[in-house]
Amino acid sequence: MADMPKSVDIREEGPREGFQIEKNIIPTERKVQFINALAGTGLKHIQTVSFVDPRRVPNMADAEEVVKGIVPKEGIKFTGLWLNDKGLERAIATKKLTIEGGISLSASNAFLKRNQNVSIDELIARLPTTIAKYKEHGIELEGGLISAAFGCNFEGDIPVERVVELTGTLIKLARDNGMPFKRLTLADTMGWATPASIKRVVDAVWSRFPDLDLVLHLHDTRGMGIANAYAGLQMGVRRYDAAVAGLGGCPFAGHKGAAGNVCTEDLVFMCQEMGIETHLDLDKLIDCANMAEDVVGHPLPGSVMKGGNLAKLRAAASQAAKA
Amino acid sequence: MADMPKSVDIREEGPREGFQIEKNIIPTERKVQFINALAGTGLKHIQTVSFVDPRRVPNMADAEEVVKGIVPKEGIKFTGLWLNDKGLERAIATKKLTIEGGISLSASNAFLKRNQNVSIDELIARLPTTIAKYKEHGIELEGGLISAAFGCNFEGDIPVERVVELTGTLIKLARDNGMPFKRLTLADTMGWATPASIKRVVDAVWSRFPDLDLVLHLHDTRGMGIANAYAGLQMGVRRYDAAVAGLGGCPFAGHKGAAGNVCTEDLVFMCQEMGIETHLDLDKLIDCANMAEDVVGHPLPGSVMKGGNLAKLRAAASQAAKA
Repeated sequence: MADMPKSVDIREEGPREGFQIEKNIIPTERKVQFINALAGTGLKHIQTVSFVDPRRVPNMADAEEVVKGIVPKEGIKFTGLWLNDKGLERAIATKKLTIEGGISLSASNAFLKRNQNVSIDELIARLPTTIAKYKEHGIELEGGLISAAFGCNFEGDIPVERVVELTGTLIKLARDNGMPFKRLTLADTMGWATPASIKRVVDAVWSRFPDLDLVLHLHDTRGMGIANAYAGLQMGVRRYDAAVAGLGGCPFAGHKGAAGNVCTEDLVFMCQEMGIETHLDLDKLIDCANMAEDVVGHPLPGSVMKGGNLAKLRAAASQAAKA
Repeated sequence: MADMPKSVDIREEGPREGFQIEKNIIPTERKVQFINALAGTGLKHIQTVSFVDPRRVPNMADAEEVVKGIVPKEGIKFTGLWLNDKGLERAIATKKLTIEGGISLSASNAFLKRNQNVSIDELIARLPTTIAKYKEHGIELEGGLISAAFGCNFEGDIPVERVVELTGTLIKLARDNGMPFKRLTLADTMGWATPASIKRVVDAVWSRFPDLDLVLHLHDTRGMGIANAYAGLQMGVRRYDAAVAGLGGCPFAGHKGAAGNVCTEDLVFMCQEMGIETHLDLDKLIDCANMAEDVVGHPLPGSVMKGGNLAKLRAAASQAAKA
């Protein structure tokens, strides 16, 4: 097992993951207000919107308007998500977002079949065209993502060897097309991971590709999010996707509760309490989490936003002891 | 670090931890129905009621009636909680509960001062009387508990050395009074623990008292419950208190969300997925968690009850693959 990292980088996904699933239309100005508040917490990377079909995702119909409202801040990357060329062109046209080229695969054929009606092999065959598109726009490839890397509701367990093989495929595709491939996100898309499987998959990928910069994208569907992040820390993983207040989740899966991304401020709390540098202001993140509940108009699953930051209790206890 | 245990023992605290904090009076027959359902899940130890002042805890006013309704089952210990002689005598008078003698201390003077208006030393001075009372009733001492072992809202961080010292005090007190002391529960009463502090405290206590049977009583106040249990497993701890659906929590702390015990079925899910034997039926536990929500009449924080057991998805995926 590796040493725990001295610091972590957290990419905030709340505005994109959180708002896209809400049934009620959230006013553009509230989305903007939330994103600008997040930019005051120390976060260096905020995924703000997705450029997708507004008929399928009504709350992203105002993506361009939201981006217009963002107040640029030095050192912060505001990004967007796209799933096709049209989306990429919309993102570029904002002239405001940081465009990070990525190539994605899924480890589950059954998931792909169901969602995009393609196989893994068909998806692989399309990737050179994606890379060519990036080249055409002068966009560098940052890396890629493998979804359903820890299991799939429709296919069951995913063999670790498949994740390693797909990682190799992504790296080779990038290199064959004259692009670097530095970073790989392993996504627990449907909340199948446990600390044991996080360690198994991370270990297998890093054993084969030790220089790869790994990111964990964790969902808290079965309550394992923070424990899985801890397992990632124990393996030396220092990059995590997260969402303030645990925003997000899949309203189509028949879940009655939220099952969004691992909660940013809960993850930050754990890191800070264990002496891992986050460069983030926990109290400001808690303020953002409370704002998020207000914006979506219903309770969100974050815990530290309810339990509170221990720093304040420590300070009060120390005052009381002196009195 | 020790090896992960091959199996774990979970003590269910839901009926006691969960119902005592509800403002609405829950009908006796519903409490009984819930406890009897829990007895069908494989749980071997269910804490059912507390014998306390009904003016302070109205939902425990019917403790004796609840116990009357429990259907005894071979191999299952039904227990109760008491805080004084009167409570102990009420528990004994049921002639139905297993009476486990225990001696408790808190690691926080400030917490004790606030809650019972005593100091740690005053509490220690009272323990020989408690042990004498057990002897008088022919009750064997099982062990003890240290509350606020990982931190305290009113005192702040708790030095690890103090927890080790208090453990020694409890063991010595038991032995000086001719009683065994086999088991120690370390309680994270106010949700201060992180995986790092779980490891620090468990390591310190076991380094000094390697034969002690350790139990972790974890609260999920700041979302660390499952990660803390995982840290306990990594240290080799095989006993956990937990509450179905995450029942429990402290309505007096100004929390807007539940902050109960670590959730039984989420913990069981993690163990089962990692190959640790629980001897529990996860689907039946999920049924109990849904029943708990119905009984208390509001949502509860458990995750697997919403996200679902992977065993069913695996079976369906396997069927689909064959078709």
